[in-house]
Amino acid sequence: MDFESFFRSELDGLRREGRYRVFADLERQVGRFPTATYHGESGPRDVTVWCSNDYLGMGQHPKVLAAMHQALDGSGAGAGGTRNIGGTNHYHVLLERELADLHGKEAALIFNSGYMANWAALSTLAARIPGCIVLTDALNHASMIEGIRHSRVEKHIFAHNDPADLRRKLAALDPSRPKLIAFESVYSMDGDIAPIAEFCDIAEEFGAMTYCDEVHAVGLYGPRGGGVSEREGLTDRLTLIQGTLAKAYGVIGGYVAGSAALCDFIRSFASGFIFSSSLPPAVAAGAIAAIAHLKESPAERERQQDRVQALRRKLDAAGIPHLENPSHIVPVMVGEAKACKAISDELLARFDIYVQPINYPTVPRGTERLRITPSPFHSDADIDALVAALGAIWARDGLKRAA
Amino acid sequence: MDFESFFRSELDGLRREGRYRVFADLERQVGRFPTATYHGESGPRDVTVWCSNDYLGMGQHPKVLAAMHQALDGSGAGAGGTRNIGGTNHYHVLLERELADLHGKEAALIFNSGYMANWAALSTLAARIPGCIVLTDALNHASMIEGIRHSRVEKHIFAHNDPADLRRKLAALDPSRPKLIAFESVYSMDGDIAPIAEFCDIAEEFGAMTYCDEVHAVGLYGPRGGGVSEREGLTDRLTLIQGTLAKAYGVIGGYVAGSAALCDFIRSFASGFIFSSSLPPAVAAGAIAAIAHLKESPAERERQQDRVQALRRKLDAAGIPHLENPSHIVPVMVGEAKACKAISDELLARFDIYVQPINYPTVPRGTERLRITPSPFHSDADIDALVAALGAIWARDGLKRAA
Ligand SMILES: Cc1ncc(COP(=O)(O)O)c(C=O)c1O
Ligand SMILES: Cc1ncc(COP(=O)(O)O)c(C=O)c1O
Repeated sequence: MDFESFFRSELDGLRREGRYRVFADLERQVGRFPTATYHGESGPRDVTVWCSNDYLGMGQHPKVLAAMHQALDGSGAGAGGTRNIGGTNHYHVLLERELADLHGKEAALIFNSGYMANWAALSTLAARIPGCIVLTDALNHASMIEGIRHSRVEKHIFAHNDPADLRRKLAALDPSRPKLIAFESVYSMDGDIAPIAEFCDIAEEFGAMTYCDEVHAVGLYGPRGGGVSEREGLTDRLTLIQGTLAKAYGVIGGYVAGSAALCDFIRSFASGFIFSSSLPPAVAAGAIAAIAHLKESPAERERQQDRVQALRRKLDAAGIPHLENPSHIVPVMVGEAKACKAISDELLARFDIYVQPINYPTVPRGTERLRITPSPFHSDADIDALVAALGAIWARDGLKRAA
Repeated sequence: MDFESFFRSELDGLRREGRYRVFADLERQVGRFPTATYHGESGPRDVTVWCSNDYLGMGQHPKVLAAMHQALDGSGAGAGGTRNIGGTNHYHVLLERELADLHGKEAALIFNSGYMANWAALSTLAARIPGCIVLTDALNHASMIEGIRHSRVEKHIFAHNDPADLRRKLAALDPSRPKLIAFESVYSMDGDIAPIAEFCDIAEEFGAMTYCDEVHAVGLYGPRGGGVSEREGLTDRLTLIQGTLAKAYGVIGGYVAGSAALCDFIRSFASGFIFSSSLPPAVAAGAIAAIAHLKESPAERERQQDRVQALRRKLDAAGIPHLENPSHIVPVMVGEAKACKAISDELLARFDIYVQPINYPTVPRGTERLRITPSPFHSDADIDALVAALGAIWARDGLKRAA
């Protein structure tokens, strides 16, 4: 087999469909968020980033940077090993305590990414609990899907955010077998939020574990940033809460929080946890600073929500169609891959605005979109510039307006 | 099902077998490597670390730390997104160029860990190449095993480092189906090295791809630190070289290097690459500095090899049994889980020496060991103290001596 031509022809297929990904080469700048230097073909220039998942700009927060500088000078660049073999650093221990406290759980366990946290925790729990059946929301993230798939256990997909369907599916299963229900709180592409309380009621009725991915909610919801589960007083009812340190907390890494035995079990059996070098001390130190700050300070969350509302009002006034939802995510719907990419390209080339097009397989075909994430640092002028640019493109191309 | 008691009883099982893992809570200290502060039950105290995978102490190198401080001040804590959605930083682009150059390949692709690089690259290649069959060395790392397993393709395990067995297995397969041969260069637990040239001959004969994990070799072997494949002039004959940034390079992250089409293919189709926030700019900057330094400077490698030889000589003189091998890894063999842990505990408690016990499933039962990794920074006095401590324990407990 000619492997090279196989790879090339698969890549050509993506190009034909208009969903070949071109990464924007950005240089973020401390103190200038959401501005970044874009390294394009015609040389570097400033752009306004409208699709960062550094939702609150914590990646440039002075407390976070100071903590990282200090740990770097104190403990060096890397951890030097896997957690078990020389790679547990005192900052890891402190970070796991901070996370347990954030979610009001006995313990927490950190991973090198939120993806790895989901993949490793779900595959380990599902595969190791004898006879386990997994019930998984139809729109769960790739990392959850792959973790469940890896376990090879029996699984049932329930309709997205649909307690009635979950109930129906559970009722049809052997009551004696252990069950795990996996879902997210805030869904990152549509910005809708799961009916967590109803899911917990059903889980209790059927004696199932609940596994909730709060990747797009931690730091952003709840009085201390403990996520939607904190806001709704539901942390106690979730068996496991999973989150990331790479979005609202501005650094990198992922985690799970739960009972001491649950975390110890995953710690002891998850291949993706055991056999991988651990997070650098400076990363853990930065995450601790970000979590601690957002536990005390609601200002960033409030300002973010204010910016989200301001953008929505102006999009409405301009007739630009966006998906209503109760979160901080503003999906401007386009509905076709090539058009979506063309709008994004034009925003960058003509308006110095960077919003990545979101195409299949990240979202279903026909729902291609620009996913816009306002931060506390986007000014009124930034919002006006974005809406004016979209308005100009919408008008010239005769794109569909909102009702 | 009572999940909590299930978790507890599984953990009790590990304790009974003597292989429940207790992480040593360490605080590494820049400028004092291999000394670290151990946060034990009786308060913090200094210990000498003898099992770090920061093989060359690059985690404290001034160039690495300076590059990280600068990127932290310039670009902030995290990348702010996945590579595709706002999370490609200029440092990522530069790091991928540096890695491609290191291995003399057209391109490279970075991941959040070496584990993720193996899991994502192997599962994507095996699953996406129609009809692919994988041939995998019997002692391959967990991350490779799980990646291959995840693809669910037909696989054949060949005897460890055994070209004849690989050849036999390949000859029995349908010649028309595409094949991928996966192995490591330096095996981290025994320290032996694969017959890469012979594997490449066989791969060419059968038209198979070669996938070589150089995690324990990059930075350490070859005139520029390009690994065993560089040392032996074999980079051109390997389809893909995989490595880590967390061991000799002292930071965190993993990568693959290969043809432009191969890397673009993995970039475009690997779930674990696409759907995870990318490495912080400071991590990428630190890795670039470490790679660039070790390309030019053989001093660290030479001093490391000198320390390895010095330790081996003194172990031999004291009759402490260790596995001979052609690498930098010195496995002191114990052969039983509880004894192995007891020796490690005593080294820490009585001699202020930290070497983690390596038990099943990291190594086969009956081959439990202390895996010792001398670095350029271990002094003669450090070596003498280690050998004296081992000698005292061996004598008191009447442990088996080397012939
Ligand atoms: C719902 C969800 N879970 C998990 C992840 C993975 O987290 P991380 O970026 O930390 O790998 C993401 C996205 O990145 C996500 O959207
Ligand atoms: C052979 C091998 N491959 C891959 C890995 C994973 O690399 P990382 O630690 O960067 O996740 C390891 C160990 O950690 C390893 O020993």
